[in-house]
Amino acid sequence: MATQDRLIESTQELLWERGYVGTSPKAIQQRAGVGQGSMYHHFDGKPDLAAAALRRSAEEMRAVAEERLAGPGTAYQRIEAYLLREREVLRGCRIGRMAQDPEVVADPRLRAPVEETFDWLRGRIAEVIAEGRAAGEFVPGADPADTAAAVVAVVQGGYVLARAADSVEPFRQAVRGALGLLAGLNAPAGA
Amino acid sequence: MATQDRLIESTQELLWERGYVGTSPKAIQQRAGVGQGSMYHHFDGKPDLAAAALRRSAEEMRAVAEERLAGPGTAYQRIEAYLLREREVLRGCRIGRMAQDPEVVADPRLRAPVEETFDWLRGRIAEVIAEGRAAGEFVPGADPADTAAAVVAVVQGGYVLARAADSVEPFRQAVRGALGLLAGLNAPAGA
Repeated sequence: MATQDRLIESTQELLWERGYVGTSPKAIQQRAGVGQGSMYHHFDGKPDLAAAALRRSAEEMRAVAEERLAGPGTAYQRIEAYLLREREVLRGCRIGRMAQDPEVVADPRLRAPVEETFDWLRGRIAEVIAEGRAAGEFVPGADPADTAAAVVAVVQGGYVLARAADSVEPFRQAVRGALGLLAGLNAPAGA
Repeated sequence: MATQDRLIESTQELLWERGYVGTSPKAIQQRAGVGQGSMYHHFDGKPDLAAAALRRSAEEMRAVAEERLAGPGTAYQRIEAYLLREREVLRGCRIGRMAQDPEVVADPRLRAPVEETFDWLRGRIAEVIAEGRAAGEFVPGADPADTAAAVVAVVQGGYVLARAADSVEPFRQAVRGALGLLAGLNAPAGA
């Protein structure tokens, strides 16, 4: 792997494990097996490298979500596939955890990939809900954008509850609860 | 205020602002206007003081939630009051943010008040939902514990989305979305 890619990948891992504040340039260099000079040859410093790592994590997360949301099945089934996809729940969300980090939120360059990822995700799920409504699968009622925000929030909040409990169970409960509530949008059979 | 209380309160504030990793004993002493010797007279060290601060924040958060959940109105209205209560959304949840902190999650004494708060909250909202069901307000269907986990997750995830966007709007959207979905539990009038 190219040095630049090794640096980005090591930073992605460290940000996920330790957060931004807890990740030092030295730890990145050690994980990547790259010297200080080489790191500063490729990147201006920790914020620059972290921004590149967050952009890559955001792209990866987006691709994984799109695979489920653009998959086969009804609107409900596509959202279900998104909610039930395999996740490393106890590690938390690589992107969402960054929003809790004061230094990330304070730096527009670091916050941008986090904000853009969630904007895209909420918009994409709102589209799926609107499609389900247009197809007569869902009853009209709840606003698609609001419902989509609730779906994304359940996943992000599920991670928080799971990490708090050191158990995946609260995440699974929250997802089952969301699916139960979303089932209420289904138009009655034969209606 | 007694020295011990000043230390606890300063730690509560700093944990909320900077997280556990970002809060140094020195910063606590400065904020509290207390010397190092005095701090170590009252507490064994940062973990001990942080545990006391988290326990107090947890008690406060629980009292605020209970006021809404035990308030007047239907089950739906009580959950609505909980979801719509005034919050400092962009500061995030004092308790939930701690679950993202690797050192908090790794220390059972620090994680305990976080876990207990969410256990209590999920259980309490499940009770309210079960009451609404017993009273014929809600249709039977979704499991109360699962639905309650989804409600708590929407709030925690709403904070994440709001901080990512540096705007309260995604939090409000998620809450509106959750209320729209919960309205689907309401039994049809006259049924």
